[in-house]
Amino acid sequence: MSQTFASTLLENAVNEFSKLPGIGRKTALRLVLHILRQDVQTADNFGNAIIRLRHDIRYCRVCHNISDTDVCNICSDATRDASTICVVENVREVMAVEATGQFKGLYHVLGGVISPMDGIGPADLEIDSLAARVAAGGIKEVILALSATMEGDTTNFYIFRKLAPYDIRITMIARGVSVGDELEYTDEITLGRSILNRTPFSDSFKS
Amino acid sequence: MSQTFASTLLENAVNEFSKLPGIGRKTALRLVLHILRQDVQTADNFGNAIIRLRHDIRYCRVCHNISDTDVCNICSDATRDASTICVVENVREVMAVEATGQFKGLYHVLGGVISPMDGIGPADLEIDSLAARVAAGGIKEVILALSATMEGDTTNFYIFRKLAPYDIRITMIARGVSVGDELEYTDEITLGRSILNRTPFSDSFKS
Repeated sequence: MSQTFASTLLENAVNEFSKLPGIGRKTALRLVLHILRQDVQTADNFGNAIIRLRHDIRYCRVCHNISDTDVCNICSDATRDASTICVVENVREVMAVEATGQFKGLYHVLGGVISPMDGIGPADLEIDSLAARVAAGGIKEVILALSATMEGDTTNFYIFRKLAPYDIRITMIARGVSVGDELEYTDEITLGRSILNRTPFSDSFKS
Repeated sequence: MSQTFASTLLENAVNEFSKLPGIGRKTALRLVLHILRQDVQTADNFGNAIIRLRHDIRYCRVCHNISDTDVCNICSDATRDASTICVVENVREVMAVEATGQFKGLYHVLGGVISPMDGIGPADLEIDSLAARVAAGGIKEVILALSATMEGDTTNFYIFRKLAPYDIRITMIARGVSVGDELEYTDEITLGRSILNRTPFSDSFKS
């Protein structure tokens, strides 16, 4: 359906919204008309939040997480365990791990995983800076928390090789049956791995 | 799930996005991270489109449709039939009717329908300005194209009473079985109305 817009301002705003992933033109129009019904201040806040975000956002000098400051609030938090680094792909995974409340160390955001198909090699990721953090000393453990995909595995292996010279523990987040999953519907690779990597029953009671 | 944001800029942008209807916090985060990956110009365009929309948008002095100019491009189009006015609730309905390509007259946007439950009375809508347009002369027909709801019917009736003194034709868009609907599944009120308001068979061939 071709739409005739009574206003180029309206059309422009709808075009911008429909560039977002998962937002079609009908949804875009609905959102734009919603904004039109709000007062000027609300629309200003919305527009400026987007502009300021993109202009003023910084990345932590240490872990490369999104930050408002030179060193992010996780890296500069003295109560956290600075000897443990959790390696993740992106900002979103930092938030996911933080939301679990199970990790009190620091992070290292790679900015993706090695993916030759997408033209992403080790040099495009923050792997050298990870090695530099480990080389600087004081690190006891590096936890690899990447996606359970071929690209994730490749990246895990590359980092493992890169960090092998250092006297640290390199671990990987457990892969196995998801909590709440029924065994009947678990794929055989996951189930196979979960048997190979079985843990002592008493470990289940650890908080 | 409570989210910990590494950046107040990020948090702020997510908060603004999640104020939009149908956008939850997870979707908001996804959209914001998408914008972060775009270049600065793209983010500026997006933000400014929203701000300019709300600041610079105008409403047509004649029909109250959204417009970039004092009189909208529909009202100022000399090729359209200025003697017929289609009364609609909102901007979106103007676009819906325009998309059908079946109407070549002008519009009048009420800005809603009479709804005592929501505190919307006739004075909150552009009903007096509609009467003024009719009173000014030159109008032959007013087509009421409001929602087939109780509020729509109330508004239809109110406008009908208001325009009764004038020597014009007042019509209402047809209510009946939707094109493509099976009779078996049509509700009895719609089906009943469609029988009462049956049209000569030969009319079906009119373009």
